[in-house]
Amino acid sequence: MRAPVTVSPDPSLSHRTLRSTVTVLGPDGQPLPQTEVTVTQHRHAFGFGNIGFDLVDLADGGPAPSAAGAPGHDAARTAELEHLALLWLDVFSTATLPFYWGTFEPVRGRPATGRLLRAAQWFVDRGVTVKGHPLLWHTVTAPWLLELSTSEIEQVQRERIRREVTDFAGLIDTWDAINEAVIMPVFDKEDNGITRLCREKGRIETVRLAFEEARAANPDATLLLNDFDLSTAYECLLEGVLEAGVQVDVLGLQSHMHQGYWGEEKTLAILERFSRYGLPLHLTESTLLSGELMPPEIEDLNDHQVDHWPSTPAGEERQAQEIERHYRTLLSHPSVESITYWGITDDGAWLGAPAGLVRQDGTPKPAYEVLRRLIKDEWWFSPTPLRTDDAGRVTVSGWRGDYEVSARGEFVPLVLDGEPQQVQLP
Amino acid sequence: MRAPVTVSPDPSLSHRTLRSTVTVLGPDGQPLPQTEVTVTQHRHAFGFGNIGFDLVDLADGGPAPSAAGAPGHDAARTAELEHLALLWLDVFSTATLPFYWGTFEPVRGRPATGRLLRAAQWFVDRGVTVKGHPLLWHTVTAPWLLELSTSEIEQVQRERIRREVTDFAGLIDTWDAINEAVIMPVFDKEDNGITRLCREKGRIETVRLAFEEARAANPDATLLLNDFDLSTAYECLLEGVLEAGVQVDVLGLQSHMHQGYWGEEKTLAILERFSRYGLPLHLTESTLLSGELMPPEIEDLNDHQVDHWPSTPAGEERQAQEIERHYRTLLSHPSVESITYWGITDDGAWLGAPAGLVRQDGTPKPAYEVLRRLIKDEWWFSPTPLRTDDAGRVTVSGWRGDYEVSARGEFVPLVLDGEPQQVQLP
Repeated sequence: MRAPVTVSPDPSLSHRTLRSTVTVLGPDGQPLPQTEVTVTQHRHAFGFGNIGFDLVDLADGGPAPSAAGAPGHDAARTAELEHLALLWLDVFSTATLPFYWGTFEPVRGRPATGRLLRAAQWFVDRGVTVKGHPLLWHTVTAPWLLELSTSEIEQVQRERIRREVTDFAGLIDTWDAINEAVIMPVFDKEDNGITRLCREKGRIETVRLAFEEARAANPDATLLLNDFDLSTAYECLLEGVLEAGVQVDVLGLQSHMHQGYWGEEKTLAILERFSRYGLPLHLTESTLLSGELMPPEIEDLNDHQVDHWPSTPAGEERQAQEIERHYRTLLSHPSVESITYWGITDDGAWLGAPAGLVRQDGTPKPAYEVLRRLIKDEWWFSPTPLRTDDAGRVTVSGWRGDYEVSARGEFVPLVLDGEPQQVQLP
Repeated sequence: MRAPVTVSPDPSLSHRTLRSTVTVLGPDGQPLPQTEVTVTQHRHAFGFGNIGFDLVDLADGGPAPSAAGAPGHDAARTAELEHLALLWLDVFSTATLPFYWGTFEPVRGRPATGRLLRAAQWFVDRGVTVKGHPLLWHTVTAPWLLELSTSEIEQVQRERIRREVTDFAGLIDTWDAINEAVIMPVFDKEDNGITRLCREKGRIETVRLAFEEARAANPDATLLLNDFDLSTAYECLLEGVLEAGVQVDVLGLQSHMHQGYWGEEKTLAILERFSRYGLPLHLTESTLLSGELMPPEIEDLNDHQVDHWPSTPAGEERQAQEIERHYRTLLSHPSVESITYWGITDDGAWLGAPAGLVRQDGTPKPAYEVLRRLIKDEWWFSPTPLRTDDAGRVTVSGWRGDYEVSARGEFVPLVLDGEPQQVQLP
């Protein structure tokens, strides 16, 4: 193991900001003294993400016709999705798209590659970074694996990883290489080919397989190990995986809080335990409910099935307060580089839970407004007119991320990442 | 990982017995036809163990004089210990001796080697196999480690392992190489040098260190990885350790049941999960109470401190029933090769709990009688007179273990281990 890292949280978020001197050059390469420029932030270096599942239909050309076939239905549904897309794009800049094998390729040899390529392209066209989730998982896996021998399962799993990572390279360069390996070989809710594979190969070799194939298909990809089990079991797995020489780029931590908000102390303790491996942390799946909480005795969240699980006014206030506390806590820890909220809308949310930021009727909840205020206001560099000094320089104090400098009607990009900056107008 | 192993439990314990043909030869090497012989079992191949902590004083020449200095006290105490020793030796054949660094070498450079050598020799002289516990652990570790740098801690920890394993080779050839590595780097109850070391090196490298030094000092030693955490965390750690090429001889599973007997289903599920690595399993620390149970909300058993924790008649009946169920369940699983009960007497028991098999006043509890009946009666080959056939053969159907054949006033050892047997009288 590499030497452990000790990183202290800083609630002032000073580690998220920079003060940078930018020299503005004219088309001739000479500094432009005493010139009016406007600096505008375009995106955060920090990954503020959400799932893009709900928008795949829209990106794929609108929702499929309803069973009833009423043409009016499609138009109304499309309008709803367009409204949802506006809300989504106004706050988030990283989308997680679904690559569950069981839904991506329910019939062997007929993967939904085209549909997902269109979805990924739709997000990329709108300036959104896309992540694929997951390449290897025992849940929602291809049912037809059960007909194969374990060595055949390994073969088709390897091929599937190479295929997806290759087909989407350039559009999707970040992947959950493997999901929930801690429980994978002992998962007993449902017989499935991946648990069989992992039980025979062991966790570490299964992790290796996923990373090996994904890396071979796209050497530049960012590959995550992702898990919901944040106990010492995950630490032990990670230590074994690192010891085995598997190159993990990012450690993914789920945080579905259907049973209640963790609070600052628990959250920071988790971040402290997992940051000491020196890997960036992504909070890959964060959920806070705006309704009744799931009872604490439920161990597998999937076991809690209710007919009706409404979002309530009191729940929405609580969700809004908790989401602010959670994001402030996570951003305070320098190892955290991304948070993906798990749900934009209650419509079709996992388990039917009121986990979304937007109600079933399309109106934003207070939690949405809170996130928008944090991400696009309090933590945002508003367009600011500045004047260069005699040496053509302006000082920008802002959040790490992508910016634009405009002057004389021209626009040039600027990246605030700590390097000395020079921008040249065309 | 090696291919997973599937082993089915067998309540009939047929895997613990053998039917073996033994040819009895005379001093001239010729078979002795039609001769009366008696076959007697001496010990089980299975390890029926207990801690030997309480008998160290006796083995070391009697208890130390009391503070009051009354000579009668020592004599009475010695008599009590001699009585306890008889009870101990009548049932058990494997002893765990304490090598907690903090009590073994409280002052650097002054280890209790002589005292423990005498204790080990005492047991060995009585036909008992001795195990040392533990070579590396963060609890009850040497307090003076806190004054050292982490690299110095590693150095003295390595030296300590080599020293003990070398000094005791021949008397103690089985060691808990490392104890509770799952929690080791995140243990936060008490600052200590070993947690610091493990946090910096990582769990796997710390495990490697312990096994490496112990193996180097005694290549023939049986070395255990031992833990109380039987969750998936331990599986993950073990997979990482095996992947890293550390040779683990035996997997040690603690089972302190201060909060209640596990029951057959949970016990078998644990054995199933840990047997699939193909390693022998030792139940290294088993406890069942004969009094009130510890409340279920206690997470670290050490947190439960009570002034008075009596053994009760109802508790003793429950303990006796549970110990029988527990031993039957454990023996039914072919991967289990040893059970060490953690306590012979309530006098001085860990946490003051009524965990012993003998009451404070020295009288045996029903659980003692149950164990004695199982180990030395139901699962024992009583001395049996047999007559050889015309080819000098007798058939012995008995429990795997060490036996003695006597004929014509002579005694020769016999090992019932599945090999064809021939014994020659002197």
